[in-house]
Amino acid sequence: MHSRFVLIQTSHAGNVGAVARAMKVMGFDDLVLVAPRWANVLRREETIQRASGANDVLAKARIVDTLDEALDGMDHLCATAMTPRDFGPPTRAPREHFAALLAQAPGALDAAPSNRPGGVAFLFGSERFGMRNEDVYRCHACLSIPTDPHFGSLNLAAAVQLIAYDWRQALGGFALPPAEPARPAADAHALAGMLTHLEQALVAVDFLDPAAPKKLMPRLNQLFNRAAPTDEEIHILRGVAKAMLQMAAKAKR
Amino acid sequence: MHSRFVLIQTSHAGNVGAVARAMKVMGFDDLVLVAPRWANVLRREETIQRASGANDVLAKARIVDTLDEALDGMDHLCATAMTPRDFGPPTRAPREHFAALLAQAPGALDAAPSNRPGGVAFLFGSERFGMRNEDVYRCHACLSIPTDPHFGSLNLAAAVQLIAYDWRQALGGFALPPAEPARPAADAHALAGMLTHLEQALVAVDFLDPAAPKKLMPRLNQLFNRAAPTDEEIHILRGVAKAMLQMAAKAKR
Repeated sequence: MHSRFVLIQTSHAGNVGAVARAMKVMGFDDLVLVAPRWANVLRREETIQRASGANDVLAKARIVDTLDEALDGMDHLCATAMTPRDFGPPTRAPREHFAALLAQAPGALDAAPSNRPGGVAFLFGSERFGMRNEDVYRCHACLSIPTDPHFGSLNLAAAVQLIAYDWRQALGGFALPPAEPARPAADAHALAGMLTHLEQALVAVDFLDPAAPKKLMPRLNQLFNRAAPTDEEIHILRGVAKAMLQMAAKAKR
Repeated sequence: MHSRFVLIQTSHAGNVGAVARAMKVMGFDDLVLVAPRWANVLRREETIQRASGANDVLAKARIVDTLDEALDGMDHLCATAMTPRDFGPPTRAPREHFAALLAQAPGALDAAPSNRPGGVAFLFGSERFGMRNEDVYRCHACLSIPTDPHFGSLNLAAAVQLIAYDWRQALGGFALPPAEPARPAADAHALAGMLTHLEQALVAVDFLDPAAPKKLMPRLNQLFNRAAPTDEEIHILRGVAKAMLQMAAKAKR
């Protein structure tokens, strides 16, 4: 599915760069600017600096005069606005809307054709005024990022970052970088053997009194159950117990 | 649950301001800076400009010399890093980790005590070097935001924005602003009545030939089923049909 980010009448060059970067980290690269304040915004120093390496997104970006020109090939339009508009499309939180959009849930897509959309465009208004009503009206949904009701002032690039993240996650997401190797916990037998070893060591260093053990060992058992040590960690812990025993033997020699 | 954002050795004042804003839109206000590059970073012009009204977060923020001093009252520490560290805590995507943390799912919280944490701290390294290994090691989880494997360069404030969003959503989220009133669809009887009215009008304006209707009305019926019009919209559509009929009558008079 083709995904496009459309910035309408953006005034801050830094935001354009930050938007390019926000898109690229989530794997999107189709950026269209409608009537930006600066005609050369894609080449301004602040733009390039804030893009921080997302130069291919800037290089591929288009500048057009009208919203119409920005929407070729798009068949599902998402406005973004903090406040719903009377007579506008339904207001939805991005996560819920994306899930419904991709699942073709009835109801969420009242106005859409019955196939999954081929192109989805996300429209962002200007920093100062947001989206014009007439631009919101043509959209299929109005996305509203749930923010603190007392402070909903999201930076433009931050809004793009959140929408791009939610959309990427809805599309299946990226895998995390190569994870740590699987960490199988040692079995209960290995854990019990280590605890016996440790108990001997604790007695040897005069920490545990076998005549009045209180509940020390059950407590340590619970602690290690929660920690679920690996075989390697069991080996380390037995090494510690062994060293304690040796040092105690040396001291009492 | 207390939530704290800790920036370690942050070098860009603008980022500190943007972080304060990113936190505040998600309803968080506890910011601690560990050894920032600028001692006066909370009062710098760029900071205040990028905070864009999140002045209370800046006013409440603390500057400390060491990470230890930043962690009072916190009992679950989340590192943030793009690359997992050998011998470090398990790497997790934020959403999954937060769900497990709040659900107390066994396995996800191997190292944590059995109660839900009382204080959760999110640690962010410097813009240039990320987190130091020794700071990662003390954490319970290493959060990694799933990004494009070929471009994982998230801006610091963007990373804070995404973590703050996922954490707020996991905590239950904010409601959307007052939604549009419920939009009950008209019933099938009302829709059928409108379609009959419309059919008469289409015949009257010589668009529909009753002798060769093709599949026009079933197609319109499907279209309006998808649109699920309200009673008010049915009323509008019947008004259109009525006007068409009147104009046709006038024309043929």
